[in-house]
Amino acid sequence: MRTYLDCLTCIVDQAIKTMQLHTDDEQWIKQKMDDFFPMMREVKLERTPPENGMMMYNYVAQVTGNPDLFRKVKQENTRKALELYPYLKERVETASDPLLTAVRIAIAGNIIDYGANRGFDLEKDVERVLQQDFARLDVEPFREQVEQAKQILYIGDNAGETVFDRVLIETMGKPTVFAVRERPIINDATREEAQAAGLHRVARIISSGSPVPGTPLNLCNREFLELFHTSDVVIAKGQGNYETLSDAPRPIFLMFQVKCHVIARHVGMPKGSIVLWYQS
Amino acid sequence: MRTYLDCLTCIVDQAIKTMQLHTDDEQWIKQKMDDFFPMMREVKLERTPPENGMMMYNYVAQVTGNPDLFRKVKQENTRKALELYPYLKERVETASDPLLTAVRIAIAGNIIDYGANRGFDLEKDVERVLQQDFARLDVEPFREQVEQAKQILYIGDNAGETVFDRVLIETMGKPTVFAVRERPIINDATREEAQAAGLHRVARIISSGSPVPGTPLNLCNREFLELFHTSDVVIAKGQGNYETLSDAPRPIFLMFQVKCHVIARHVGMPKGSIVLWYQS
Repeated sequence: MRTYLDCLTCIVDQAIKTMQLHTDDEQWIKQKMDDFFPMMREVKLERTPPENGMMMYNYVAQVTGNPDLFRKVKQENTRKALELYPYLKERVETASDPLLTAVRIAIAGNIIDYGANRGFDLEKDVERVLQQDFARLDVEPFREQVEQAKQILYIGDNAGETVFDRVLIETMGKPTVFAVRERPIINDATREEAQAAGLHRVARIISSGSPVPGTPLNLCNREFLELFHTSDVVIAKGQGNYETLSDAPRPIFLMFQVKCHVIARHVGMPKGSIVLWYQS
Repeated sequence: MRTYLDCLTCIVDQAIKTMQLHTDDEQWIKQKMDDFFPMMREVKLERTPPENGMMMYNYVAQVTGNPDLFRKVKQENTRKALELYPYLKERVETASDPLLTAVRIAIAGNIIDYGANRGFDLEKDVERVLQQDFARLDVEPFREQVEQAKQILYIGDNAGETVFDRVLIETMGKPTVFAVRERPIINDATREEAQAAGLHRVARIISSGSPVPGTPLNLCNREFLELFHTSDVVIAKGQGNYETLSDAPRPIFLMFQVKCHVIARHVGMPKGSIVLWYQS
């Protein structure tokens, strides 16, 4: 998916909000924004939003001297999600359709996001998503393909959400590789946050090689690309992965919440929609 | 009121949305935004948001070659509001408290806004505001002072809203001067839109001299400033006037809807609040 004009506003907004994690000195942030604004020229509408966002996050990391401003946020979200873990497991175990319930849970965990969606209320929002109708639900091909799969590649999104992903991976019960970002970017899961969620117990964790909040194949490493092309099933979580993999050269299951009006317009579904989309 | 960091995002957003009234050529807008971004350095946190916004609107007027991009929008909103006029008058005439109902109507009209609040539904939103509780309602000093006033200065805000202002001016029944912006800025009312609303029949229309979407006294003309200091009652409508007159050197009645989270935080009231505030 390409970048839209409204994404420019969002990049500016995220630059400010990310620097606010570093300091509450508004004049300092204003000065750094003054230096940043001319760099917005580097944003290209032809590229995906995560690729365009990388330049901004790199700049913020550089001026704050902190490449992992969301570290505490990620730890806190993982802690909160782990508290919910027994409850989520119980929901699956008592469900009439455990696999579909686990899919819902995995999508519910996608509410944890500091790019497109701040100010969420984890427990409340999870409960809402567990009740909500899907705007698109390609559950039959998902069920069939997971059942037959010998190898699943699961591309993660945010830290904390990883706990919800773990529930789905455990429910699918298939050999799974869980791909994370190469290095810290917003609150996306890296190897550290995947392990904190206990994912190493149920999957093999690899880095996709991507340094952006998504998975542009041109930025991924060889190990990931091989698995991407050879795995029986590929699952990609979240908007950032949707934005970079919506034109992927292989069948893929996209699971996400529609969190901004740009995506809503692009997919033709209202903001807040939940989606299990088989792009075949 | 000063400018906050989130206002930077809003200025960028309004630049894009205003250019989209001129063209749907995204690459053209992106190129003009590339030239605009470095100008964001001119934004000063110490100044009011309308003063900072002026630079952007001037730039957009220059690159589009159109100093009045909202002309059609203003005409359309005035037309819609005039259709509601008989209904609004009836509401006042059948009300147990006509003055308070007219105040509500004037504030309801403030929903018409293309700066902070696009995508309103006029009839629905007006009805909502007519039912809604005030977050702050200094109606007793308002009632007393209007009753005793020999001369009222009423500082207008948006085109279309002017029809709602007319209802309040007619209900107050006092000699009133209605102040408009010096020249077109967003969808704010100038002399043309005040007349289109029929305000010249119930008030004397003057320009405040302000070229910005608000009323910074340092940018106002002598006639306005004299009236501002000598009128028995001054009424200022809308967020832009609040932002520039919240520290005014005389008692003033501020009537507005809280339309963005920056104002909400500044006034300590939730977004969507309606306010009749006597700043004495």
